Amino acid sequence: MGTPKQASDDSSHHEPATRQRRPGGRSARVRARVLEAVGELLLEAGYDGLTVDAVAERAGVHRTTVYRRWRDVGTLLADVLDAASDDNWSPPDTGSLEGDLTALNQEVYEALAHGGPHLTTALIAAAFRSPEAAEALSAFWEDRYARCAAVVARAADRGELPGPADSRALLVAATAPLYHELLLLRAVPDPTLPHRAATATAAAARADAFRPATPPRPQATPDAAPDPACPRP
Amino acid sequence: MGTPKQASDDSSHHEPATRQRRPGGRSARVRARVLEAVGELLLEAGYDGLTVDAVAERAGVHRTTVYRRWRDVGTLLADVLDAASDDNWSPPDTGSLEGDLTALNQEVYEALAHGGPHLTTALIAAAFRSPEAAEALSAFWEDRYARCAAVVARAADRGELPGPADSRALLVAATAPLYHELLLLRAVPDPTLPHRAATATAAAARADAFRPATPPRPQATPDAAPDPACPRP
Repeated sequence: MGTPKQASDDSSHHEPATRQRRPGGRSARVRARVLEAVGELLLEAGYDGLTVDAVAERAGVHRTTVYRRWRDVGTLLADVLDAASDDNWSPPDTGSLEGDLTALNQEVYEALAHGGPHLTTALIAAAFRSPEAAEALSAFWEDRYARCAAVVARAADRGELPGPADSRALLVAATAPLYHELLLLRAVPDPTLPHRAATATAAAARADAFRPATPPRPQATPDAAPDPACPRP
Repeated sequence: MGTPKQASDDSSHHEPATRQRRPGGRSARVRARVLEAVGELLLEAGYDGLTVDAVAERAGVHRTTVYRRWRDVGTLLADVLDAASDDNWSPPDTGSLEGDLTALNQEVYEALAHGGPHLTTALIAAAFRSPEAAEALSAFWEDRYARCAAVVARAADRGELPGPADSRALLVAATAPLYHELLLLRAVPDPTLPHRAATATAAAARADAFRPATPPRPQATPDAAPDPACPRP
């Protein structure tokens, strides 16, 4: 879930027979090329290597087009994260709270636990440099956590929880140890961590550790309406 | 616990009557002045404003002295963190696991949950720029977690835990949500978070959620010897 994917030009990849229709149009294709260039440059040279001119050159787009539409590096980074949110990602549905949390954590682990550069890590580092990137990264994660409320709602529906649970607190408890160990503590990646953190959080949830403060948050009650941000639960 | 304190020249502050003895000597006083200058510049101008020359000027120390002893900015940052580890900090002892974890989390919260610049946040951001700072920050935190193993050992001694617990996993579970919410998600600071995260983790521990993988890690067993890194438990 913590893995913003690289933007790509879907119009040419997925509809070759109707290429002349240009779904999304020229503007969408320029955006895809520019955002792909931002990701590439960020991975190759980090935030310091990211300039509007370098992005324009890499994307093969006139620099005034990039300046007019994005203005600066912060806006470009924010748009990478906006584009990454604009997908149909939904949390895994494995049939158990422990299984769903393990699968979520596995996604986070794969984004953070490797030696080489990765867009997620590069964007998190960039967020410490650019307020616009920081704000967009927060929005990206808030959207992911909102979609993941479905994981807690399903657990409640299955009777896995003793009562209402604060879904955000539960989800943060499950995923935060991965970010903490891999990104901040820079511990040697432990492939058992996704499952261990999920198991501990599921046990805590069964022990009513995420009982909401009074009054309960609406989305945390087991009979709450489905989260509208999660159209494919 | 996540709060490296600013180095200061203790020789002049605490022993005015014996100032002529110069405890620690000239070299120790130069180090204290230089490390204090590093912290000040990092807070004022961030990593980009941190140069060896600026540090020398701020500290009132000849630049060749700084270059000879510290070489570069990465080494200076690493020494700030080394100096911060060289204290007699020990985890709070409140008489209960929940109380100890809440007090620990309160320290983290106070370091991270404010609008203005703070040395902890500045050092974490610098660690995304400098491998030396990253390594030193990891070592600082590992030392803190090792000292905090006493919190889990005391809980076990009091019979608060149903069996052996992985103290590191328990401590990371308690503290990670604070770093995640305040530093990565940049959520609006919630003053109930330190206590909520502590309560959830203590409940999880009572539910045996941190049972160690086989074989148990030595420091996690309730009858383990006191942690030698924690002389004042």
